[in-house]
Formats: sequence, C-alpha cells, structure tokens
Amino acid sequence: MPMNFPELLENMATRNNSIVCFGVDPVIERIPVKGSDIGKRIVKFYTELLAAVADEIAAVKPNYAFFAQYGFEGLKAMETLIAAAKKKKLPVILDAKRGDTGKSSEAYSKEVFEAWKADAVTVSPYMGADSVAPFINYCGKGKGVYVLVKTSNPGANDLQQLRTETGRKLFMETAANVIKWHKPGVGAVVGATNTAELEKITKFFAAAKKKIPLLIPGVGAQGGSAREVAAVLRKVGNDVRIHRINSSSGISCAYEKYGGSDYVSAAVKEVEKLNSEIGALT
Amino acid sequence: MPMNFPELLENMATRNNSIVCFGVDPVIERIPVKGSDIGKRIVKFYTELLAAVADEIAAVKPNYAFFAQYGFEGLKAMETLIAAAKKKKLPVILDAKRGDTGKSSEAYSKEVFEAWKADAVTVSPYMGADSVAPFINYCGKGKGVYVLVKTSNPGANDLQQLRTETGRKLFMETAANVIKWHKPGVGAVVGATNTAELEKITKFFAAAKKKIPLLIPGVGAQGGSAREVAAVLRKVGNDVRIHRINSSSGISCAYEKYGGSDYVSAAVKEVEKLNSEIGALT
Repeated sequence: MPMNFPELLENMATRNNSIVCFGVDPVIERIPVKGSDIGKRIVKFYTELLAAVADEIAAVKPNYAFFAQYGFEGLKAMETLIAAAKKKKLPVILDAKRGDTGKSSEAYSKEVFEAWKADAVTVSPYMGADSVAPFINYCGKGKGVYVLVKTSNPGANDLQQLRTETGRKLFMETAANVIKWHKPGVGAVVGATNTAELEKITKFFAAAKKKIPLLIPGVGAQGGSAREVAAVLRKVGNDVRIHRINSSSGISCAYEKYGGSDYVSAAVKEVEKLNSEIGALT
Repeated sequence: MPMNFPELLENMATRNNSIVCFGVDPVIERIPVKGSDIGKRIVKFYTELLAAVADEIAAVKPNYAFFAQYGFEGLKAMETLIAAAKKKKLPVILDAKRGDTGKSSEAYSKEVFEAWKADAVTVSPYMGADSVAPFINYCGKGKGVYVLVKTSNPGANDLQQLRTETGRKLFMETAANVIKWHKPGVGAVVGATNTAELEKITKFFAAAKKKIPLLIPGVGAQGGSAREVAAVLRKVGNDVRIHRINSSSGISCAYEKYGGSDYVSAAVKEVEKLNSEIGALT
C-alpha cells in the first residue's frame, strides 16, 4: 500500500529536518535571469533555486495564479517545475484555491492530480461538502487536500470573522467541517499572521483527535514569524512534522534583502534561517 | 469610451432577444463526435453548437474545470472556443471561481482577462475584499466580475445558510459585500434552485438601487426552472436584460433527451424552449 499524504509529509520532514514549504510564485519583474522567453526565465530561476534548497525544505507550493497569468508559457513552466520537484521527491502542493459544484470539482480534481500531477491542492470551502468531496476522494490514493480555514490576508476578516448561529466564528465553522470531512490527507490552510487563531484551530483539531496537516502561509513578506508559529505548534503538542510553514518571495527574492545578485546563496541562507527559527522537529 | 459590462449584457439581450447563457462544460464521454484527439472533438462539437445558437443566446460561459481536466489539450480547446464566441460578439464569462490573497488575485485577474481574454469571471468571496478587488479593478475596462453569493449545489447550505452576528445569513452577508464593493460590472452568482432566495437577493440589490447583473445557474440538469426564475426577476421590476440564466449540458446534451444523434438541432430546440419559457424581455 502506498503512503498516505500525512506519512509523505512526516517522512520528508524527517529526511530533510525541515517543515519549510517553498512557495513558487513567479513574478517576472523579480526574476534576475536575462532572456526574452518568460517561460524559460521562470524555469531557469526556480530550477536553480530548487536544486540548491531541495535537501533543506520539505515541500514545494506552486501558486497556480502566478503561472497562469503568463498563459500557456507560464503553465508549461509550472509543469516543468512540478516535475523537477517530484524528481527530488518533494511533496508538491498546488495552491489553486479550487472549489465548484460537485461535477465541476470532480473535473478540477482531475486537473490537479492527473493533468498537473500534484500531491496536494488548496480548496475553498464556500460551496460546501459536495464542492470539496471529489478532491477528498483522492486522499485514498495518497493525495492531500488543504481546505482554506483562516487565510493570512486582510480580507480574511470580511467573512471568516463573522460569528455564526452556532456561537462559533465562520473560520471555526469551516474548521468543524474539516473535522467532519476528515480522512487521512485532509488538511487546513491557516495563516501565520494571527498566531492566537492558529493556536485555537490547532487545539480544536487536537481535541478532536484528528491528525490534520496545516499549511501555514504568511511568514516573511506578509509579516508572520516562523519562530512564533513553530512555538504554537509545539505548545499544542502536535507532531510538528506533518505541518508546513510556507515562504514564497521571502525565499526566491531573498537576494533583494541580502543585497547582491547571488539569488541562489541568498535563498539557501533564507531557508536555513527559517529552519533555525523553527528549531528541532522532535 | 467603451461599453461597461452591464451595457454589453443589455445590448446583447436586446439584439438576440435572449438572456440565455450557454454553459460550455465539456465531458468527453458525452460528446458524440468521433476521433482520437480530445481537443479536436471538443472544438468541433462546441463550434457547431455555437454557430447554430449564436443568434439565440446572450452569453457563453466556459467552465474552466472541464477544460483543465484535459490538461493543455483542453485549455487549447477553451482558447479556441473563447475566440469563436467573441467573434460572434457574445460576452464570454469564464466560470473559474477564482479568489486568493491580493497579489495572487491580481495574477488571476491577468490570467482571466489578458491570457484567456474573457469578458467576465466568477470569483469566490471566502477570502474577502482584497481577494476580489483586483478583478473588480478591471470593471473600469469593460470587464465583469460575478461574486458567488448563493450557489445552486447541495453543499451551498453548509456555510452559506449560517446565520451570522448581523442577523443575516452568510449569503446575504456576501450580497451586502457585493453592494459595498460595487462598480458597474460587479455581479452575483445566485442559483436557480431556490427561487425564494433568488427573490430575496434580487430585492436586496434593487433596494440598494444598484444595477447588479445576476448569473443564474442551475436550470435544467440541476432542477431549476427558467420560467420561475424569469418570473422572479420580472416581479422585482429589474430590467431583466442585464441578467443571465445559464444552461450547460441541458443545451449541449439536449440530443440525449430528445433522442437521435442530431445534437445541433436538439441544442437549438432547447435554447428556443428556454427563450420561450423566459418570455418577452421588455
């Protein structure tokens, strides 16, 4: 029997002694590789970065939007980079925020897991159970599904913070749905920008005795702290190794922060800094 | 100055005396065109259908999921069909349920309006204002944005029906956000499967004196009635011409219902039936 997705996450964390997820969000203006072909510049930049950090990270998260904005050229680059990450045995989380009626979500699950060959995907909960079920059905085949619970952006407060008739806020309602829908491989997106809420959600999942991998974006550019996030995860007593803390431009564009043009060394330095902030995993 | 999106919708409704939106959701098993190339079969089937119904419909809604499930081949077919619909001057609504943090949504808006050249897009509201703002910014360039308010699927009840602290249910909270975010071109997706809620939302928008185009899926296969939907729209006194009632497989696979292999005549018959159920527009 093949590994399920949480096992894949644990194994990789143990192997590379890291829970860092490298977010791949290409913005051509910030890619210091010369050339006229957008796709080739993206592939060259991220292939170099991936090769350099592959043994110090524990997942790769391409964000569909940043590739799709460049049309077919961008999507071809995404396909190439997914293959490169998989060759390094890194779990690939396609950050695509999918979610539609049952039949459409079924088509999206084929897109994500068969056409793009991702190991996991992010999905939006607004349309409810039948909109996420087709993705969750793939958990039996070793795939993972991260449901958006509490996102890291300012607009998260518009709906997610509303208190509902059950006494819970909407994001906790979504967390309750994640427990209801749970199979091994079902996880949750919880932003790093509010550690109090992260702690609340982590405790809620722990109390339900469910092993729910968290995908935690928002450190670095968005202001969250990897150190604080890791402290929360440890405090709740979860095995930290199933979770992932994501950094995207924080890693790929570390060269802007550290100065100089050596983007590879800057990215490695940033990953090592994140790993050190997160600390020992066991 | 170019037309804004509601003007485009009105003009087309007047020209073709229709508010029917033809949903393009290719499922290869239901496409009775022979051949080994999936992309070519999709293009042939829908090009024939589009040519036959172009003067009796008022928009085309390709659902991204159904193309993307076939990878590049599917997406190439989508590109071809969008060009075919635009050649007929039909507004193209890309049903993609996009929505992400601000910067990612900015990339998605480029994907939708620049790479795919759609006239409008569907977006998910779970991540709030900054996740829809980049799409809405395109309204100034004649584009349209339909925010998911109340969807037509069973799972819609999981979150959308929760009553919130403001006394409103979540879908009405989203409707309130649509009013708050409004510019000409901002619309709402409201399923046909619950006409009482459709009426409530339509009245709510009318009371706010906002011209908000509705995209109404769920007639046909999902059980909603075009006649009842049109009656609700008329009752509220809105100009019916800015709204769209969508049918997808109800049109493309009408040949299954009517018998025989003449899918073109069956689709035309179904569109005419829908137009007649909806009745006169003025």
